[in-house]
Amino acid sequence: MPTASAGPRRRADAERSIARIVSAARTALSGDPDASVDDIAKAAGVGRMTLYGHFRTRAELVEAALADAMRAGEEALSSVDLAGDAREALARLLESSWSLVAESVALSIAAQKALPAGRLRELHAAPARRVEELIARGQDQGVFRTDLPVSWLVNVLHYILKGAAEENRAGRVETGEVGRLVIATARSILAVPPPDATPGHPDVSAGAEVSGP
Amino acid sequence: MPTASAGPRRRADAERSIARIVSAARTALSGDPDASVDDIAKAAGVGRMTLYGHFRTRAELVEAALADAMRAGEEALSSVDLAGDAREALARLLESSWSLVAESVALSIAAQKALPAGRLRELHAAPARRVEELIARGQDQGVFRTDLPVSWLVNVLHYILKGAAEENRAGRVETGEVGRLVIATARSILAVPPPDATPGHPDVSAGAEVSGP
Repeated sequence: MPTASAGPRRRADAERSIARIVSAARTALSGDPDASVDDIAKAAGVGRMTLYGHFRTRAELVEAALADAMRAGEEALSSVDLAGDAREALARLLESSWSLVAESVALSIAAQKALPAGRLRELHAAPARRVEELIARGQDQGVFRTDLPVSWLVNVLHYILKGAAEENRAGRVETGEVGRLVIATARSILAVPPPDATPGHPDVSAGAEVSGP
Repeated sequence: MPTASAGPRRRADAERSIARIVSAARTALSGDPDASVDDIAKAAGVGRMTLYGHFRTRAELVEAALADAMRAGEEALSSVDLAGDAREALARLLESSWSLVAESVALSIAAQKALPAGRLRELHAAPARRVEELIARGQDQGVFRTDLPVSWLVNVLHYILKGAAEENRAGRVETGEVGRLVIATARSILAVPPPDATPGHPDVSAGAEVSGP
């Protein structure tokens, strides 16, 4: 075999091998956040040494698996129609986001355990930006509150999606129920509060008594 | 030294040693969730072997540190006045809870990494029950929503408190600001939604247009 052609072929082999390892890591870690490097190498059909040749640590492998899942998620989310009323657009976005988060909840746990928080945040930058823009648009439309920072609202929605996925995974919330809970909760969080909100924030339109001044 | 009196004295020594180790673990893990057993032994002024004599694994030590923090937290929370309007009681409870959560955010991260989810949940049972009872009382008073399960609402508040502590720790939300954000968000989540809530949940009292039927 002439060495001149070995380079490109080796690179192609390496790329196939990497893709197989990342795919196996995604599957394994989505089932068990504590899946070992050995489990993943076995599932990918490669040797331990081959795997470590591409990923020096388990953390590198977890990061590659999460990045791959985020890329696939971005493809799905970028096709969600965000036009029109921001409240309805948010419901559509949350419905799609929730199933993506649910699919990767074990993988997220693996990533939380293995990666620094800053790196996790970078990997979530694109979906966070999408929600941020949608909230800003809803504020322009006058349908979302402006009394709390947008960055806080984005984070709250993120924590609620993650929490919902954890509750679902633990069997405390049924899969068919999660979308409704997440969307109803998100709506309440983003809705414009009544202008005369007292400390207790009574809902005037619902007929509750206003006890404050 | 007569062996007859060695038993009680040894037990007293052991208890003092355990208390010192647990206290050192709380301090160390509250600063760095990845603090090692060696760091903790050194801070407690005991040898590695002594520490392992009391706690067989790092996870056992993390659990003891978290249990100790939760006990102290329970003492603080049990003195919060929960009488009167449930909305105002909730604000007082969240204000106190938030600072406890903030103090132990690194310790919580350590516990999440080291302990099974079920054990973590058991350790949080008492504060969760307190919030659950308060929400039920607010529902009886007609000031909290009844269209979402109480268990979901308790979990959402938990995830928001944890999220707020993480945001604060990462320097993205100022300490003086967290209480207001958490309380305003919790109020919106628990408030009775308008009876004619359309998909977008427009807030009629705030003058937003109702686009639905």
